[in-house]
Amino acid sequence: MSDLIHYEDFEVGAVADLGTRAVVRDEVIAFARDFDPQPFHVDDAAAKASMFGGLIASGWHTCAMVMRLMVDSQLSRTASLGSPGVDSLRWLQPVRPDDTIRARVTVLDKRRSASRPTLGLVRFRWEVENQRGEPVLTMESTGMIAVRDPGAPL
Amino acid sequence: MSDLIHYEDFEVGAVADLGTRAVVRDEVIAFARDFDPQPFHVDDAAAKASMFGGLIASGWHTCAMVMRLMVDSQLSRTASLGSPGVDSLRWLQPVRPDDTIRARVTVLDKRRSASRPTLGLVRFRWEVENQRGEPVLTMESTGMIAVRDPGAPL
Repeated sequence: MSDLIHYEDFEVGAVADLGTRAVVRDEVIAFARDFDPQPFHVDDAAAKASMFGGLIASGWHTCAMVMRLMVDSQLSRTASLGSPGVDSLRWLQPVRPDDTIRARVTVLDKRRSASRPTLGLVRFRWEVENQRGEPVLTMESTGMIAVRDPGAPL
Repeated sequence: MSDLIHYEDFEVGAVADLGTRAVVRDEVIAFARDFDPQPFHVDDAAAKASMFGGLIASGWHTCAMVMRLMVDSQLSRTASLGSPGVDSLRWLQPVRPDDTIRARVTVLDKRRSASRPTLGLVRFRWEVENQRGEPVLTMESTGMIAVRDPGAPL
């Protein structure tokens, strides 16, 4: 456990680049068939005729892809205990097959849990852009992170 | 198009039951392997040793499952044009394999877009509970819905 990133290691204001992910057409369609089968997510002709002018990824798929970047880049090495929620999630531009998205997170603030001394709450601002530098998604999330030294004063 | 539910058809205060979905263990693990491979989502032993006491679904998977209920129940018959975002998303309780979740949406408010007369914005409150009636997820989303009669005064 001691090698893991703990609550104490997060610095307010720190920015982390989570890297990039290619948006794959078959994955866009597969995700949408499972979870969001609206015509502009699964049907080329309908998508072309829609206001989007072509197939776009489900917004939930974009969230999921970005989550994977966060896990690979950071949470897999963190004493992560899940999340109570997300605020101000915005899908700003369509995400399309063959786009490449890049995500960045900034630590907005952090606090120890008053009721559970083993737990810290870290708030992140997420910014996701496409290969043209256009913002496609922003949100603010809270992560529950284990405290390395729960005996330390709150 | 005329058979579809349009912006005009949404009534503020209306509540819709979106029905239920069984949470399937293999799907929980498959989703998490793709998008959120944290130990408590993919690894039985690690999940059992965690504060969750067993495998839980990725919060993004819960969102995706609930989205599918919304599409099947309502959006597939609606002139839906996507969503600009979600506020106050809260994962209130773990969602576990073999749970059955039920979702309900309430129309909070609605307005025509000032800049795009063909478009209406409808805000929904989502409430999701498990088979014991415990709330597991709440959020507020905005849907973009085509206006049936764009010539009508705003």
